[in-house]
Amino acid sequence: MDKAMYDKGLATRKKVLGNEYVENALRNVDDFNRPLQDYLTEFCWGAVWGREGLPLKTRSMLNLAMISILNRPHELRAHLRGALNNGVTRAEICEIFLQVGCYAGAPAAVDAFRVAREFFKEIDAK
Amino acid sequence: MDKAMYDKGLATRKKVLGNEYVENALRNVDDFNRPLQDYLTEFCWGAVWGREGLPLKTRSMLNLAMISILNRPHELRAHLRGALNNGVTRAEICEIFLQVGCYAGAPAAVDAFRVAREFFKEIDAK
Amino acid sequence: MDKAMYDKGLATRKKVLGNEYVENALRNVDDFNRPLQDYLTEFCWGAVWGREGLPLKTRSMLNLAMISILNRPHELRAHLRGALNNGVTRAEICEIFLQVGCYAGAPAAVDAFRVAREFFKEIDAK
Amino acid sequence: MDKAMYDKGLATRKKVLGNEYVENALRNVDDFNRPLQDYLTEFCWGAVWGREGLPLKTRSMLNLAMISILNRPHELRAHLRGALNNGVTRAEICEIFLQVGCYAGAPAAVDAFRVAREFFKEIDAK
Amino acid sequence: MDKAMYDKGLATRKKVLGNEYVENALRNVDDFNRPLQDYLTEFCWGAVWGREGLPLKTRSMLNLAMISILNRPHELRAHLRGALNNGVTRAEICEIFLQVGCYAGAPAAVDAFRVAREFFKEIDAK
Amino acid sequence: MDKAMYDKGLATRKKVLGNEYVENALRNVDDFNRPLQDYLTEFCWGAVWGREGLPLKTRSMLNLAMISILNRPHELRAHLRGALNNGVTRAEICEIFLQVGCYAGAPAAVDAFRVAREFFKEIDAK
Repeated sequence: MDKAMYDKGLATRKKVLGNEYVENALRNVDDFNRPLQDYLTEFCWGAVWGREGLPLKTRSMLNLAMISILNRPHELRAHLRGALNNGVTRAEICEIFLQVGCYAGAPAAVDAFRVAREFFKEIDAK
Repeated sequence: MDKAMYDKGLATRKKVLGNEYVENALRNVDDFNRPLQDYLTEFCWGAVWGREGLPLKTRSMLNLAMISILNRPHELRAHLRGALNNGVTRAEICEIFLQVGCYAGAPAAVDAFRVAREFFKEIDAK
Repeated sequence: MDKAMYDKGLATRKKVLGNEYVENALRNVDDFNRPLQDYLTEFCWGAVWGREGLPLKTRSMLNLAMISILNRPHELRAHLRGALNNGVTRAEICEIFLQVGCYAGAPAAVDAFRVAREFFKEIDAK
Repeated sequence: MDKAMYDKGLATRKKVLGNEYVENALRNVDDFNRPLQDYLTEFCWGAVWGREGLPLKTRSMLNLAMISILNRPHELRAHLRGALNNGVTRAEICEIFLQVGCYAGAPAAVDAFRVAREFFKEIDAK
Repeated sequence: MDKAMYDKGLATRKKVLGNEYVENALRNVDDFNRPLQDYLTEFCWGAVWGREGLPLKTRSMLNLAMISILNRPHELRAHLRGALNNGVTRAEICEIFLQVGCYAGAPAAVDAFRVAREFFKEIDAK
Repeated sequence: MDKAMYDKGLATRKKVLGNEYVENALRNVDDFNRPLQDYLTEFCWGAVWGREGLPLKTRSMLNLAMISILNRPHELRAHLRGALNNGVTRAEICEIFLQVGCYAGAPAAVDAFRVAREFFKEIDAK
């Protein structure tokens, strides 16, 4: 493992998804999924998110569109949280998901809006 | 918004999915998802479903196949209801999902059959 | 191999795609792809297309929608030919691809229309 | 139906997924899903899994990768069971899902690891 | 058709993709694909791209990511042109495609980079 | 960059895809795609392929199945070459693609067989 890249990735991951979320993920690490967690932290969060070429807000917007199309609601929830942390507004999230509907079809948009509304309801209730 | 197209779409949407289903969807409209609901009603239901080039029954059959492949079980349930309303029989639904299995693979068919059986069980219980 | 099912499948395959197309495919059979050709003829064309529960025209319409979404232009061309043979009109193909656009996104529809226009141009030139 | 192929498929299906799982699936057969169950047993389990060209363990490994990408968690659970029965170790499953992450993206891997951990927890609790 | 929305869409479409590209597309309109061209102009370009909630540059960035994942190289080329017109730099395109690689897998990124390099080579040669 | 991981990845990449193929890829590196090439070498080839948990032959088999489903013919060709280098036989490739047909649908298998036959014809001609 590249310790410097891992540490850089961990810092970005916490900044975007929040300390609590990341620490919870790391508490659930066992022998089976440790290689995955290391991979995510070092490569996704260190080597990609850690690059300076795009603002974090833009990366979050791209992820909301991509993960909606990839049809992964668990990850979409995590990146909705990250998007809000990175300054993406709910109105912008609405725009992104409408554009998803145009390019990836209505059902992808319907699902994305539903996941987002449930998520907003949860955080608003706290 | 194109009011005439919206009204045409709303009428088709209600005819296919049922008054209750559509009114429930519209009752849940808020600032966040209003643009989606307008888009669905005006464009999907008005500008596409509202065209005369295919019978509603054929459009329902196409949707069952497409949404199975797109892997969107919530939407599949809604369009199973629409398909029954448009005169697609359960035997025809079975045929469609077998054809999905052949062209999009066994797991897509297995999931589609499971969603349909759960849906049929629910409506048969009423 | 189930010889009866294979023969049934071969007859349906020729009826839909045309003698010339199928004989050309079978002439290109070698040790490597023989299991595929047998599988297609016996299972896709015999066990699925050979079922009586849907008219051939409906099966063709389903296939145009499914294969557009699955993004397989070679197969789409073959099934455009089959669709015309099964009585699907060009106007109906236009409707199917618009519906694909609504449910699977604009790029899927744009590609499907382009493949179809090239195919129509070719057969019109003969 | 090709009775010999069906019986061959049923034997393989039981060997891989376990008697209990398969008998449960067959107990739930009704008029609607019988054609699917026959199709799965005869074609997937008889005509593909029944071929001698690859060891069952290799077929299981391929399925774990494919079904993760196809995003079908119900089927993934069934084939995790099959993989363990066919001698795939948990460490090898970890490797397969990391490779899925590299070629199909991080969210596919995250979902596959989560489904597998839940499944392992369940069978370890018994 | 909603003439005002169509005109708004046509203006946006030309602004993003360039007059020449759009006029070429419209010159190729015939009875078969007219409904598609109208749909694209009115709904994609008018009702989605025409919304004010996101800058055109952001919409272009989202499209590059989405269309790479959707695996539609013809459309990707068109939206690479649009992205440059909307002020997305080549360095930003590189970042977007790396992020695609992380979330949708290495082959999606490899293909996107190849399409972009060929496109850049063509426009640089003019 | 983690130089040790990069070097390990480069060695594996050359071993699997061949010196000539990799050196050609690296000769085509420019400012635009250098980050991609580094990412592929360090992460895909170093951090994933470089792990000891699976034999190279197994990794190649997984890739043939995955890349067929992901519908990326350029990458499939590269990994067909890698598969042969890693000891996967043509008969095994046939088995893998049949299994792809069963789980991801007939068109995916048809395309995979066609790409493989063209590739085999090319290398047999040399």
